[in-house]
Amino acid sequence: MQNRQVVVENLPTGKLHCNNFKIKMGLIPKLSSGQVLVRTTAFAITAGARAGLQGSASYAGAAESDVVMRGTGIGEVVESTNTQFPVGSMVLGPTGWQEYAALNSRSLTFIPERYDPLKFIGPLGINGLAAYFGLFRTGRPVIGETVMVSAAAGSVGHFAGQMAKIIGCKVVGVTGDDKKAERLRNELGFDASVNYKSENFRNDLKLATPDGIDVYFDNTGGDILGSALFRLNVGGRIACCGVVSQYDTSSPDSGPRGIPGLLVNKRITMQGFLVFDYADEYQTARDEINKWIDSGQLIGWTDEVFGLDSAPEAFVNLLAGGNVGSRVVRLD
Amino acid sequence: MQNRQVVVENLPTGKLHCNNFKIKMGLIPKLSSGQVLVRTTAFAITAGARAGLQGSASYAGAAESDVVMRGTGIGEVVESTNTQFPVGSMVLGPTGWQEYAALNSRSLTFIPERYDPLKFIGPLGINGLAAYFGLFRTGRPVIGETVMVSAAAGSVGHFAGQMAKIIGCKVVGVTGDDKKAERLRNELGFDASVNYKSENFRNDLKLATPDGIDVYFDNTGGDILGSALFRLNVGGRIACCGVVSQYDTSSPDSGPRGIPGLLVNKRITMQGFLVFDYADEYQTARDEINKWIDSGQLIGWTDEVFGLDSAPEAFVNLLAGGNVGSRVVRLD
Repeated sequence: MQNRQVVVENLPTGKLHCNNFKIKMGLIPKLSSGQVLVRTTAFAITAGARAGLQGSASYAGAAESDVVMRGTGIGEVVESTNTQFPVGSMVLGPTGWQEYAALNSRSLTFIPERYDPLKFIGPLGINGLAAYFGLFRTGRPVIGETVMVSAAAGSVGHFAGQMAKIIGCKVVGVTGDDKKAERLRNELGFDASVNYKSENFRNDLKLATPDGIDVYFDNTGGDILGSALFRLNVGGRIACCGVVSQYDTSSPDSGPRGIPGLLVNKRITMQGFLVFDYADEYQTARDEINKWIDSGQLIGWTDEVFGLDSAPEAFVNLLAGGNVGSRVVRLD
Repeated sequence: MQNRQVVVENLPTGKLHCNNFKIKMGLIPKLSSGQVLVRTTAFAITAGARAGLQGSASYAGAAESDVVMRGTGIGEVVESTNTQFPVGSMVLGPTGWQEYAALNSRSLTFIPERYDPLKFIGPLGINGLAAYFGLFRTGRPVIGETVMVSAAAGSVGHFAGQMAKIIGCKVVGVTGDDKKAERLRNELGFDASVNYKSENFRNDLKLATPDGIDVYFDNTGGDILGSALFRLNVGGRIACCGVVSQYDTSSPDSGPRGIPGLLVNKRITMQGFLVFDYADEYQTARDEINKWIDSGQLIGWTDEVFGLDSAPEAFVNLLAGGNVGSRVVRLD
């Protein structure tokens, strides 16, 4: 039996291309003590993974060593040395982009049968949790405040905006596509949405935020961050979640002109966060998110592609803004 | 009797020049009800005042109206309609750069006789208070942490660094002059100091911060902020106090390249503050700062020039980094 894998053949020098990857036939790994063999049924493609390809030590020797592209997935336990994860159970873990992975049990999350496992790479996975902790712990909006979200139709953004609505905020989404902008308003209940590719973006954003902005959930950095600074109110907060405008390049832009000047004048707090810092609280957050799903208050947009071979192109396309919601590669 | 004043004759278009100002003979103002006539004995020159000359509404008509240059000063009450401020008492207030000012009593602070009034435009004034609230409320260092301060020999910086030493931090000062750097170590007890004009600045900063940086008290923005980002530890905090690198120009630079990317990776919090937001707590802070002065733990560097005519040049020179500590223009 073979283990098909997507490996990083060479690191991108400018924009990412499909030929930075190749498909390889690996072996199904042997388990060490405490490990679990997982047959991947689906994995998530996230923009943040592009940052991992910036000549970092972990992939630097990729051309020689054919390192499997990292990523979070779900799968079925097919062999186990750990009684917590019996054969047949479903798990979430760092499967990477491959059919089989030998994973240490402490890197795995058991998915109870009552859940649809796919939700663990959507609203109950890293995307939903990043929206939850970034919004509520870093942005800290309160009822009646205006929340702006960039990459608002993206995997994290569409959850962040909906969660802000759930607690009674006015929500303005920024996206790069008029159709997505319309769906944010019509399907997810955003109060307004703006296309950052419009020539009139700054003015559109101004019109969409008559009371200014209290919290900006930033998935992009760059010019959109710069524009948000001008609309933020005194005491505003920026939750820095990602920098998708700067991932797919080897020469990132300078930061916005208003930093730190506007931060001082408007006493703005800008705070970066990583969802992994909240691992101890994932279960509590999942319970709450799941209630919102069950009650219909939170909708998870899933953008599925099929088969391992489609993953590189799905990644390149995601970095160009081609996805709507959580992009998932299904292998089953 | 006449009232000599420094007025803004025209707004600077690039760097500030002395000929943006002129000396004018005004009249000693008549008091309205509740007002107090103050004879200025000294006023402070601060870099932040340059930001007020960026074509703001308040000075925009300056050429026509000869608006007196704004600034904080101390003086003696020479006429009063308010019993809280009897003739002969000393006050702190927005005197501007002039010999006499009619001021509303609620803009004044009474200076008790036990204090040297000059301290109210030094350690007990806006400079010392900005260091105090910016460091302890925004930066929040704890014992043993490393604190970096830019414009470290400046009016706010030399206090911020000393206050961090007082609570048991390691302190690294950044300045633009080797002599100032030496004085920070020898006279104020800074653990290290670095000249940002050195070709090896980034490496010097690295060597001076072997444990990284936990709190950066930022008076400059610009490249120094960019360099600090690389040395900040996970969970680091940046207290944004001022942006002196960007004041004296009409075309400010872009922000540092690592924003927001490094904020995310290192979960850094960057927070702007204005000292005026803490006005209710000034007295508590002054009591504490005064104890440090009395015990010899806090030294106030004062950089005095004499006479109203010397103020414009003293301001231009301050923006070029010519001052050491609080720059004060004395009129008595």
